Amino acid sequence: MHVTSLRFTSEEPLDGGVLAREFTLGEIPGTLWTPGSAPAPLILIGHNGGLHRREPRLVARARHSAARGYAVAAIDHPGHGDRPRSAADEQARADLRRALAAGEPVDEIFESFVGPLVEKAVPEWRATLDALLALPGIGGPVGYSGMTAVGIRLAVSEPRIAAAGFFAGGYVPRAQREEARQVTIPLLFLLQWDDEGNPRQRALDLFDAFGTKEKTLHANMGGHTGTPWFEAEDGDRFFGRHLK
Amino acid sequence: MHVTSLRFTSEEPLDGGVLAREFTLGEIPGTLWTPGSAPAPLILIGHNGGLHRREPRLVARARHSAARGYAVAAIDHPGHGDRPRSAADEQARADLRRALAAGEPVDEIFESFVGPLVEKAVPEWRATLDALLALPGIGGPVGYSGMTAVGIRLAVSEPRIAAAGFFAGGYVPRAQREEARQVTIPLLFLLQWDDEGNPRQRALDLFDAFGTKEKTLHANMGGHTGTPWFEAEDGDRFFGRHLK
Repeated sequence: MHVTSLRFTSEEPLDGGVLAREFTLGEIPGTLWTPGSAPAPLILIGHNGGLHRREPRLVARARHSAARGYAVAAIDHPGHGDRPRSAADEQARADLRRALAAGEPVDEIFESFVGPLVEKAVPEWRATLDALLALPGIGGPVGYSGMTAVGIRLAVSEPRIAAAGFFAGGYVPRAQREEARQVTIPLLFLLQWDDEGNPRQRALDLFDAFGTKEKTLHANMGGHTGTPWFEAEDGDRFFGRHLK
Repeated sequence: MHVTSLRFTSEEPLDGGVLAREFTLGEIPGTLWTPGSAPAPLILIGHNGGLHRREPRLVARARHSAARGYAVAAIDHPGHGDRPRSAADEQARADLRRALAAGEPVDEIFESFVGPLVEKAVPEWRATLDALLALPGIGGPVGYSGMTAVGIRLAVSEPRIAAAGFFAGGYVPRAQREEARQVTIPLLFLLQWDDEGNPRQRALDLFDAFGTKEKTLHANMGGHTGTPWFEAEDGDRFFGRHLK
C-alpha cells in the first residue's frame, strides 16, 4: 500500500465532549471518535458484516465507548462502505446470493471472498494504527472490536493490539481458524446462539481453539443482528480491564 | 416444614455501611448482608458446591453485592455447612468418593444425592424468602444466584424470583433438566469451560433448553473454582437490569 498521511475531512461535536471526525488515509475512508479527555486508549472497531463504518449500531457503539473515555476508529475496507467494488467483489456477492437461494453450500464462496478481504484489510488497519497513534491525545495500548476473521489476523500480526472483542457472526477462513491457536491476548468472544449464517458448533470450536487463557464467551439468544445492547457496555468494561 | 420466625443471633458492621447478620429460621441457619440504603432488592445466593454459607468466595460475593445496594441472603441446606449430616448423606459422600477413586460413573450417585437435596432446599428458600421480605428495608423483586439444580426448581415454583444467575458447575438431576424448559425469567448462566466434574456439552445443552428468551451464557477458562472475579461484577449488573 502507498504510504500517505491522514487527512481530516469533516468534524462533528457530539454530546459529552465527544468529537466525530471523518478522515482519509490515502484511499481508506474512516471515522475517528475522540472523548473530551486525553490521553485516550484506542479501540479499532469493525462492523460485524458489511463493514460499512456508518452502520447505525456501529456508530452507536463508537459513541458509547467514546463517551466513556476511549478513542474509537472505524474504516471501510476494500469493496465496502464508501469504497468501489471490484468485478470480483460483485461476482462473489452474486455467487453467494445464487447459492443461498438454491440452498447450496456457501463455505467455499465465503472462503474466496473473506480470505482475500483479510489479506487486504489487515495492512490497512495497521497503516491506520500508525497514523492514529501519531495524533496528539491518543495513546496505547490498543483494542480491536469486530469481525472475527480480520481480528484474528490482526491479533497475531500486530503487537500493539492488547485485547480484542470478536463477534462470532461471520465466516472465518481456514487460515484464520488455524491462526486462532496463536492468539494470546485477552479475548471477549460474542456469540448469537441462533445466528442464521454461523453454525453454533463451529463458533464454539473456534472459542475453544484460541490460544489465550484469558478468553470469555458471551452468548445471547437470537439471530445475527440480535446482540443485546448491554454487550456494548460489557465490551467497554472488558477493555477497561485491559487497556486502562 | 414447621413455620417459625426469623431470629438474628449476631451482627457485624462491615465497610461501606454494610451490616452482616447471622440468623436462624427454625433449624435453618443463614446470613443476611444489608446495604446502608433502603429499600434494597434481595438476592438469594447459594454456594456452587458444598453450600456452606461461610465459604470465602461466597462471602466476598455477598459483601460486593451488598456494597452495591442489594440485600443478600445465604442459608445452609440440610446436610451442609453448620447442619447435621444424616446417615444417608454420609453414605452418598462415601459412595461418591469410592466411585471417583475407582473411575466409575457417578451420575446415579449424584442423582440420589442432589435430587432429594433440591426437594428439601427449595421449601427452605421459600420460607426464608417469606421471613426476609417481612423485614423492614428489604423489597422485591428477588434474584437467585447459585447452584443450578436448586435454582431451576426455585425459578419454576416461586413467582417472586424475577431473575437468576446459575453456576453450571454441579450435577443437575433429571427432574430439573426437564423443568429447565419451564424457566421463563431472565437468566445469566455461568460456565467454567474446563470444569472437571461438569461435562461441557451437558451444560451447553441445558443452556439451550431453558425456556426464557432473555438468557446469556458467560464461559471462562479454567476449572470448577476458577471463575474470574469480574463475573461477580457482571452478576451485579445483570441483577441491576432486572431487579432495580
